[in-house]
Amino acid sequence: MMHADLDRLAQDLGRMLMARGWHIGLAESCTGGLVGHAITNVAGSSSFFLGGIIAYANEVKRDVLGVEENLLRDHGAVSEPVALAMARRARAVLSTEVGLSVTGIAGPSGGTPTKPVGTVFVALSCPLGELVRHFLWHGDRSTNKMLSARAALALACEALAQGPSEAAAPRT
Amino acid sequence: MMHADLDRLAQDLGRMLMARGWHIGLAESCTGGLVGHAITNVAGSSSFFLGGIIAYANEVKRDVLGVEENLLRDHGAVSEPVALAMARRARAVLSTEVGLSVTGIAGPSGGTPTKPVGTVFVALSCPLGELVRHFLWHGDRSTNKMLSARAALALACEALAQGPSEAAAPRT
Repeated sequence: MMHADLDRLAQDLGRMLMARGWHIGLAESCTGGLVGHAITNVAGSSSFFLGGIIAYANEVKRDVLGVEENLLRDHGAVSEPVALAMARRARAVLSTEVGLSVTGIAGPSGGTPTKPVGTVFVALSCPLGELVRHFLWHGDRSTNKMLSARAALALACEALAQGPSEAAAPRT
Repeated sequence: MMHADLDRLAQDLGRMLMARGWHIGLAESCTGGLVGHAITNVAGSSSFFLGGIIAYANEVKRDVLGVEENLLRDHGAVSEPVALAMARRARAVLSTEVGLSVTGIAGPSGGTPTKPVGTVFVALSCPLGELVRHFLWHGDRSTNKMLSARAALALACEALAQGPSEAAAPRT
C-alpha cells in the first residue's frame, strides 16, 4: 500500500522545508490522510509538519477548513478553485508557510460525466506562489489514492525546488 | 505498509457505524493520518466518515482541535487526559456522533524515562460512553504507527459492538 516513492518524496520534501525553515500543513479530501501518513513516516517530521485537516465531507471543508460555501456550490468540491482554497485555508488554519491540498474522486462511485472517477486536483500555496494541477487517474480506489498522494508530494517538492519566479503564478 | 487487518477493521467499523446511522471524526497525532487512510480505503466511506484533524504539533491540538492548554501543560500531549480530550474535541469540531483519537511517541526519538518510545494512548467518545487505552509498543516507527492505528480502530469496533452499560465508564 505504501510505495517506496511516497517515502522518498516525503523525505525530499522534509529536507527542502527544513532548508527554508518552513512548515507544511495539509488539507486532504480523497487521500483521507495518506499524505500525512507518508510525511509522518519520516523520522523527525515534527520539525517541518504541523498537521492537517482531513476534509472528507463538504461540511468539514466549509466549517473546519473554512472553504467558502459559494466555491463549493458553484464549482463543486472537486475543482481547481476549491483545491486552491483548500491549500490556502490549510496554510491559514494551521499557521504554516506551506499549504498543500488534494481533492478528487477516488472511486469506484461518485463520478459524473464531466468529473469521472479518477479526477483529482492538487494545489499548493506558499510564499513562493501558488500552483494547481489536474489529473485523471485510471486505477482502482487504492491506486487512485496513492497516485494522488504522490502527485501532491511531487507538486510540493517541485515548487520548493524552484525559485519564486517560476512558482509565482497559478498554473491553470 | 497497509496491513490487511487495518482494512478489515475499517470495514467492520464502517458497517457498525452505518447500522447505527452514526458518523466518525478523527484526531490523529502519532499516526499522522494513517487511521483516516485506512477508513477511506473502504469504498463508500463517505457514508460514515466526515473527516479528521491531524494534530501533530501541540499548537494544532490546542488551536485547531481545541484541547485545553492546561491539559497539555499538566499531563503532556501523550497522556490519558489529552487522548480523551482529543476524542471529545474531534466529536465536537467535526460534528460527529463518534470521536476517535490517537496520541503517542512513534520514535525513534522523543521518548522520556516515564514515557518511552512506543507509549501510545487511544481514546473514543460516543453516545455509548468514553474509553481510553494505554499501550507500549516495541516496534520501529512505522510498526508503532501501524499498531497504534490498529488499536484505535479495534477500540472503536469493540465500543460500538457493546451495549451502553459496558462502554459507559472511561477505562483508566
